[in-house]
Amino acid sequence: MLDRVDDNGSEIRTLMAGIGLRARAASAPLSIATTQAKNAALNAMASQVETAREAILLANAKDMEAGRARSFTAAVLDRLTLDEGRIAAIADSIRAIAGLPDPVGEVMTEWDRPNGLHIERVRTPLGVVGVIYESRPNVTADAGALCLKSGNAVILRGGSDSVHSSRAIHAALVEGLREAGLPDDAIQLVPTTDRAAVGELLTGLSGAVDVIVPRGGKSLVARVEADARVPVFAHLEGLCHIYVDKSAELDMAVEIVANAKMRRTGICGALETLLIDRTALDTHLIPILNRLAERGCEIRGDEAVCAAWPQAKVAEDADWATEYLDAIVSVAVVDGISGAIQHINRWSSRHTEAIVAEDDDAVGRFFAEIDSAILLHNASTQFADGGEFGMGAEIGIATGKMHARGPVGLEQLCSFKYRVRGTGQTRP
Amino acid sequence: MLDRVDDNGSEIRTLMAGIGLRARAASAPLSIATTQAKNAALNAMASQVETAREAILLANAKDMEAGRARSFTAAVLDRLTLDEGRIAAIADSIRAIAGLPDPVGEVMTEWDRPNGLHIERVRTPLGVVGVIYESRPNVTADAGALCLKSGNAVILRGGSDSVHSSRAIHAALVEGLREAGLPDDAIQLVPTTDRAAVGELLTGLSGAVDVIVPRGGKSLVARVEADARVPVFAHLEGLCHIYVDKSAELDMAVEIVANAKMRRTGICGALETLLIDRTALDTHLIPILNRLAERGCEIRGDEAVCAAWPQAKVAEDADWATEYLDAIVSVAVVDGISGAIQHINRWSSRHTEAIVAEDDDAVGRFFAEIDSAILLHNASTQFADGGEFGMGAEIGIATGKMHARGPVGLEQLCSFKYRVRGTGQTRP
Repeated sequence: MLDRVDDNGSEIRTLMAGIGLRARAASAPLSIATTQAKNAALNAMASQVETAREAILLANAKDMEAGRARSFTAAVLDRLTLDEGRIAAIADSIRAIAGLPDPVGEVMTEWDRPNGLHIERVRTPLGVVGVIYESRPNVTADAGALCLKSGNAVILRGGSDSVHSSRAIHAALVEGLREAGLPDDAIQLVPTTDRAAVGELLTGLSGAVDVIVPRGGKSLVARVEADARVPVFAHLEGLCHIYVDKSAELDMAVEIVANAKMRRTGICGALETLLIDRTALDTHLIPILNRLAERGCEIRGDEAVCAAWPQAKVAEDADWATEYLDAIVSVAVVDGISGAIQHINRWSSRHTEAIVAEDDDAVGRFFAEIDSAILLHNASTQFADGGEFGMGAEIGIATGKMHARGPVGLEQLCSFKYRVRGTGQTRP
Repeated sequence: MLDRVDDNGSEIRTLMAGIGLRARAASAPLSIATTQAKNAALNAMASQVETAREAILLANAKDMEAGRARSFTAAVLDRLTLDEGRIAAIADSIRAIAGLPDPVGEVMTEWDRPNGLHIERVRTPLGVVGVIYESRPNVTADAGALCLKSGNAVILRGGSDSVHSSRAIHAALVEGLREAGLPDDAIQLVPTTDRAAVGELLTGLSGAVDVIVPRGGKSLVARVEADARVPVFAHLEGLCHIYVDKSAELDMAVEIVANAKMRRTGICGALETLLIDRTALDTHLIPILNRLAERGCEIRGDEAVCAAWPQAKVAEDADWATEYLDAIVSVAVVDGISGAIQHINRWSSRHTEAIVAEDDDAVGRFFAEIDSAILLHNASTQFADGGEFGMGAEIGIATGKMHARGPVGLEQLCSFKYRVRGTGQTRP
């Protein structure tokens, strides 16, 4: 009911409609901006962020004060915090995006027809991207820079928790755009924290928005999927699995599982459910669980796991469906590769899964019969990351099947068109 | 209000939920079906369509009778008609799809990372495709065959006008699936003509549908875009333009325009609005319009066109926004390539546009500054077709910017996943 028509709703509607029109207008010159112009803007944006360090820190202090007053958890406060190091990292990240190849205009594929027509499929910007995110203020810079490099205008709608920090960063980005002669409206930040603005953005602002990228928790994603009237890059949770086959090398399995779960527990590529081949129960389970426990991980096992490793808590059905984002892992025993595929296809969020195995048949079936965005063999699920894929920065990991899937980087922020060159051909 | 909860609504909901579950179940074996199995099924489907010729003709006669009773226009009746030749063409089209390369499992791109990880992006089926179409009964076979070859289960919801023909064709397809040992539920036809079934399909049947492909007129497309809760391959109208630059070779311009408008007026790639460079008014306009008039085309011109060619009717604003699909063309004079780009970006449906010109700068700007799915230089807009692009059969031409754009063939009916091969890598 946030976006019903009342006085405030009507004001917000007018505000957002204006933002949409300006974004659409900015998208035309951006779509044909040269690589040099875009890179000059990105480098200027990075310098402006550094120059505005004090102002950004001051703004961030306001957000932190408000967050402490509202008794945010330490983890949320940490996500919100900016310091000199993090501001330098934001500037570096913008410069890194300037260093990536320009996707726009790339000929993706080309071919000739028997009648002499030459057909090219060429990468083009999507147009206008709407990004809806929560507390991390660095998303303002990352999303702004990625959209600019891919020739898109962007409308950023950050969370109210980080509103002052985001505004300060956004002001620096706009200074950079001006310095390089690109339109201010290339990167707009919705000025209000009224949630009705989100509702308006999700309608597509009368055709002004081409795609919505949600970055946040379950409730944001659910609202976006329910209310969006334009395409969405679906970003569900990362309920990631590792299956340890009986053919797995034991040491490798121990290292991969410990890394996948404990390197960073709060990222979407972190392991949440471990599946052990029943015939590897005696050989592999105990060393793997010992290592996890040593690293401070809570184990929740099914009956067979609890029987083999009595320190484990008993897993409930809800555990197989839970993305803990914490030092907790659920562990189930499965009947070989078939059992693993069955469990994953039932419970997975289709983000990232890994198999540890030396048996080629098991690996082949894992790769063929599981339909998740990223499947890994003998490697940690924490590699689910645009940077680790060599794609440069990413705006997130998509779990939908359309357009963008897996890491969403510059290429995924693009569409394409066909250019056909003839010499007077008409169709018989 | 077609899908409100009443007795009938609840029955339809139960029916459609069952269809969704069966489609999802069928999609798993289909996604790993071998190319041989899929081709065997396609060839069997083609033979079964031929074998069922009499039954299909009988069913079609019922649709034709109902159509005549409802005073359908000759054009609609023609679209509805099947005869021996058209049934043979349906079978041939299925066999042609069997002959196309299998997109599933194709490694689209692959690369190595410095840490030794090998990453492949591999084509996979989308899963379950919902196709909503109107009167042409051959769509039942084309859509069924394309989805099968791309490893997708499909739910077909044909129009009530062709219900008997579609059912007879569908029965033949299912016989073919059985013969080849693939699940019947690979290709389901919604058995009811109740429009509430469309509403249910558009909700995605509780996650059972991955994408909706609408094939039909404006009202269908509008309903789909408003009500769909799953991704849609947008298929708007084809409001196609040709811009004739002053540098155009006159004879080529005359031939291309006549072909683009008059070869077939009822297809989405047909020319609807002709734009003439003001400085080519004296040299190019008259011969082009004479040829169109000779071929029986009605001309609706702006003021300058009517002054130069007094037989023209006066175009109204609505003409620039109208897809005639008939022997009518609107003609406007524009100020060179800039004026052409401005007119097209204002009025186009982003389907297909062409430029006739010898001036490379004009062509370059046309290709860069117009964001339509297909742009042609010195060739007829009637080449906007998957077959003419060498992509084999198509399920339509998409005008959205996401995922599928332009002709929607086998590749566009696919998603992808990443397969990553390691040797024990963990993330530092």
